[in-house]
Amino acid sequence: MSKVGVIMGSKSDLPVMQDAIDILKGFDIEVEVDIVSAHRTPEKLFDYSKNAHTRGINVIVAGAGGAAHLPGMVASLSPLPVIGVPVKSSNSIDGWDSVLSILQMPGGVPVATVALNGAKNAGILAAQIIGTHEKCVLDRVIAYKEGLKIKVHESAKNL
Amino acid sequence: MSKVGVIMGSKSDLPVMQDAIDILKGFDIEVEVDIVSAHRTPEKLFDYSKNAHTRGINVIVAGAGGAAHLPGMVASLSPLPVIGVPVKSSNSIDGWDSVLSILQMPGGVPVATVALNGAKNAGILAAQIIGTHEKCVLDRVIAYKEGLKIKVHESAKNL
Amino acid sequence: MSKVGVIMGSKSDLPVMQDAIDILKGFDIEVEVDIVSAHRTPEKLFDYSKNAHTRGINVIVAGAGGAAHLPGMVASLSPLPVIGVPVKSSNSIDGWDSVLSILQMPGGVPVATVALNGAKNAGILAAQIIGTHEKCVLDRVIAYKEGLKIKVHESAKNL
Amino acid sequence: MSKVGVIMGSKSDLPVMQDAIDILKGFDIEVEVDIVSAHRTPEKLFDYSKNAHTRGINVIVAGAGGAAHLPGMVASLSPLPVIGVPVKSSNSIDGWDSVLSILQMPGGVPVATVALNGAKNAGILAAQIIGTHEKCVLDRVIAYKEGLKIKVHESAKNL
Amino acid sequence: MSKVGVIMGSKSDLPVMQDAIDILKGFDIEVEVDIVSAHRTPEKLFDYSKNAHTRGINVIVAGAGGAAHLPGMVASLSPLPVIGVPVKSSNSIDGWDSVLSILQMPGGVPVATVALNGAKNAGILAAQIIGTHEKCVLDRVIAYKEGLKIKVHESAKNL
Amino acid sequence: MSKVGVIMGSKSDLPVMQDAIDILKGFDIEVEVDIVSAHRTPEKLFDYSKNAHTRGINVIVAGAGGAAHLPGMVASLSPLPVIGVPVKSSNSIDGWDSVLSILQMPGGVPVATVALNGAKNAGILAAQIIGTHEKCVLDRVIAYKEGLKIKVHESAKNL
Amino acid sequence: MSKVGVIMGSKSDLPVMQDAIDILKGFDIEVEVDIVSAHRTPEKLFDYSKNAHTRGINVIVAGAGGAAHLPGMVASLSPLPVIGVPVKSSNSIDGWDSVLSILQMPGGVPVATVALNGAKNAGILAAQIIGTHEKCVLDRVIAYKEGLKIKVHESAKNL
Amino acid sequence: MSKVGVIMGSKSDLPVMQDAIDILKGFDIEVEVDIVSAHRTPEKLFDYSKNAHTRGINVIVAGAGGAAHLPGMVASLSPLPVIGVPVKSSNSIDGWDSVLSILQMPGGVPVATVALNGAKNAGILAAQIIGTHEKCVLDRVIAYKEGLKIKVHESAKNL
Repeated sequence: MSKVGVIMGSKSDLPVMQDAIDILKGFDIEVEVDIVSAHRTPEKLFDYSKNAHTRGINVIVAGAGGAAHLPGMVASLSPLPVIGVPVKSSNSIDGWDSVLSILQMPGGVPVATVALNGAKNAGILAAQIIGTHEKCVLDRVIAYKEGLKIKVHESAKNL
Repeated sequence: MSKVGVIMGSKSDLPVMQDAIDILKGFDIEVEVDIVSAHRTPEKLFDYSKNAHTRGINVIVAGAGGAAHLPGMVASLSPLPVIGVPVKSSNSIDGWDSVLSILQMPGGVPVATVALNGAKNAGILAAQIIGTHEKCVLDRVIAYKEGLKIKVHESAKNL
Repeated sequence: MSKVGVIMGSKSDLPVMQDAIDILKGFDIEVEVDIVSAHRTPEKLFDYSKNAHTRGINVIVAGAGGAAHLPGMVASLSPLPVIGVPVKSSNSIDGWDSVLSILQMPGGVPVATVALNGAKNAGILAAQIIGTHEKCVLDRVIAYKEGLKIKVHESAKNL
Repeated sequence: MSKVGVIMGSKSDLPVMQDAIDILKGFDIEVEVDIVSAHRTPEKLFDYSKNAHTRGINVIVAGAGGAAHLPGMVASLSPLPVIGVPVKSSNSIDGWDSVLSILQMPGGVPVATVALNGAKNAGILAAQIIGTHEKCVLDRVIAYKEGLKIKVHESAKNL
Repeated sequence: MSKVGVIMGSKSDLPVMQDAIDILKGFDIEVEVDIVSAHRTPEKLFDYSKNAHTRGINVIVAGAGGAAHLPGMVASLSPLPVIGVPVKSSNSIDGWDSVLSILQMPGGVPVATVALNGAKNAGILAAQIIGTHEKCVLDRVIAYKEGLKIKVHESAKNL
Repeated sequence: MSKVGVIMGSKSDLPVMQDAIDILKGFDIEVEVDIVSAHRTPEKLFDYSKNAHTRGINVIVAGAGGAAHLPGMVASLSPLPVIGVPVKSSNSIDGWDSVLSILQMPGGVPVATVALNGAKNAGILAAQIIGTHEKCVLDRVIAYKEGLKIKVHESAKNL
Repeated sequence: MSKVGVIMGSKSDLPVMQDAIDILKGFDIEVEVDIVSAHRTPEKLFDYSKNAHTRGINVIVAGAGGAAHLPGMVASLSPLPVIGVPVKSSNSIDGWDSVLSILQMPGGVPVATVALNGAKNAGILAAQIIGTHEKCVLDRVIAYKEGLKIKVHESAKNL
Repeated sequence: MSKVGVIMGSKSDLPVMQDAIDILKGFDIEVEVDIVSAHRTPEKLFDYSKNAHTRGINVIVAGAGGAAHLPGMVASLSPLPVIGVPVKSSNSIDGWDSVLSILQMPGGVPVATVALNGAKNAGILAAQIIGTHEKCVLDRVIAYKEGLKIKVHESAKNL
């Protein structure tokens, strides 16, 4: 069974990152949550990233704000797909800093970037990645999308 | 064996998107290339997206410029992971338009966005996604990263 | 008699889009309101856009936020003029995302874009479009503009 | 028969604005071209805008660069729909100045804004506006869109 | 004796523009305040701008928000120096729209632009312009600057 | 007779600033040109700014690029009106740096900012400032504007 | 023993700049605090900057908002390393103005710029500069970083 | 005697970074140059950063482009002052990506950021840092600044 590692640069990112955890649990996917700071715990960053794929983790979701180096550094050290969540932190310049420092990775080291504060989509994307090879997860993704559609139709009826 | 669908909004995107095709072939992954325009061939967009996962495609890489709706619309219609490549087209406003219209997807419909013109990274990311469940592809990703390292060490020696 | 279709990507866009509905009703123009999500109800998007001009709709006003694909996709599928309203949603990057993903349409598929949250202007523009061929609506537009002028003159007097 | 007035702030805008003229002629719509500068010929701006709708013009397409006031001032003075084309001029700040000074009109006075240098789309939009009430023009728009589709299918075949 | 005309596009700009009025009164300079909307009262804009210099006004201070055309259009119609105040209005895109549509005037028609919401500085600048030829106003500007200095020295002492 | 001081931070700014010199000479206004660098010759900056108004200069035009401190520092030290020209220099971030560091002066110390590279408008503005009290200069400004109008009318005829 | 001069353009910058003072005191480094306004007290700016290095100051930390000229002007006049803190002030354009007018200094006159409102980091950087030659300060920096690490590990445990 | 370590993420950054090397040699300061890629040689990044201060290096100058993580990661691992040079690389979004991902470091881990491509200033800043404790280097910085002044005075004479 697949497992997703959800990490963040600081505990203050948890209110945003919780969306990723919740949606993955809703898809019945195992989640392991940790705080790993690229700038304050670089050794832990190394250990975590080097070993994640040998510990049974299949996809890593990493959220950080400001000059957000966590997703890119994990991607540098791990062969797994890394999904980056730009977090809009307090002294951020409107979120542009975290968006650009996660998105604009150099050739060779991709980070799959989602929208500003888009942790929910990071979780869905992780499920879709697992769904490429696990039929039951793909089916849950299909059902989830069907559910989105029904909600819109209902809100349209209630206009 | 897994397969990646690489699509683009216009033939003029091919010089950028070729990087994705080349790197995937370098990883020995099957690639299917097509032109699908969200705005000019919406019916083809529907057919392609609805059926890709039933035709044996595991990951979709979609590139587009300007108000780039292709990756997001494919993500809306397919349960597969969709990797979006913002292409810097001629009348683009410095690429901000394609970056933001691919990245800022609403909750429920993620697109895994890579850097502006970052088709090479889109290809690597697709390989990493396949590598989550196919050991031989994971090994090729690990070898590729090892190769990057060696090249830097050599350029450092030649300073 | 002409009719305007006002659609939006989510019920949460209604407080902004209500301005378009109100001003059109003030011009005595028939309005049909619906929720059509490009990303969550793509089939409804197709049906709505393909058939609007055969159902007696003359102009479509479409509002959406973030990576706002609704106006552009409707414009891709319908021969009618489509007016796009960029909505400033909660996790938006200052509204730049919705502005650019509606405005920067590729050659061949225009969207008539109005200001951020400018639903009122979208309604007036729809009236002006109808007014190009319906004299009574043109007269109401002229009267409306006269009313704007009078209000400014009055506020100047009360300084 | 309907007529479109195409105006621009300076002769230097003509290479961009020619696209609007060409596409309208391709739709067999009568076009009247003029240079009207909001800043250098304000009296002409007044005369043009006040009288366009009494002279048989149905839609106005106005292009300008930098602090582009022409489309908005025409919209202030005419009851007709005004389509604004932001032109990327030489000392422009990446085109942001013309985009924002055309798009962000206050409530009451809309300008239908198209993409930076998007004069072609301005022409198509003008045709769509006329097509709301002239069946033969609507049919030409539908045929034009069909043509776009065929070209994409052909370029896909030749990949 | 010199006189400054302070105008604004809407009564809602008054809280910002009051700073210009207050500082000019503090310099004992006559001020005439009016509401002139480029988009809603274009005829008043014409009359005001054409005649200001014949009515004894020496400098015009004009404030507006969004696609702010007032300062530029006054500058187009009047030979007087026009000081533009970009006002950050409610649906503004962070004030960029008013800043750029006032600042980026084409060659031939300058607007003396001050900071976003910088009406106070617009008033001081108007006084400095008058001070170029009226010694007593120049002396008051010098005294005002001396006062600024003293206040900083005092706040430094109280640290 | 009035005199305008035109200064710039570096000789490399001369190609841009020459437009201010030329237009002022065209208005028959005396011009004094100098290089004054806020960062490399701060003592000269002090001397120049402190004494300009006692040496017969009425208006100062100051151009600079990047973190452009020259116009603001002159405005800090001189009671004269200071016109700032943001110059787009080579390593500039699209000119935003010079625009914002000239425009966004704090309350108390205005700089009359013109468009990016807008030295021509800086010259015209200086003439308009002198024209507020010198009738012959005002007349030349009026004639200049008349000339602009004629040129547009001629280019319109030659379409 | 080394000393750091912490200055700011206005008393209103103190809540932000206090972080620099606090962290330096925590490192047992002597701090001298003053208000020096580039625009309102230019003479004090000159005296301060010219003499700081002869008065025993080793590093200067300067904070300012808007068109923030203080750090750059101090750097122009002093041979000491100057650390600039962009302060997000009330009428700032999202902080871009202070960031760019501090960061984009011309060749020859560097300012060591830290993040928007990043006074704490300015203090740490000043300590690191002193630590390059004072072993006891270097040791305190090392201990401080160790402390950061421990806090993250603890917050990870308490997840 | 002090030593500066100059590192860069890729050999393609050398044309920009050479300015730092040249100016430091001009100040007679020992320089050690290396290529260290945060994303492609993370182990070398660790070794370099952990040991630089024990190997006799006093200041580190680090240049990188795009999502530029090198300066921040070095700052995370080393107690030395780290000067970051944002390099404008080919697929950069106008340099905003490298500027923001170097500048906006979180509290606790400063990077002394200089202007886009500002390697020359990085070298001068490194010299100033050494000059805080080495009188002969301080004297060279003072002489260098004197030289800048003389060049401006000469260019002013030759106007």
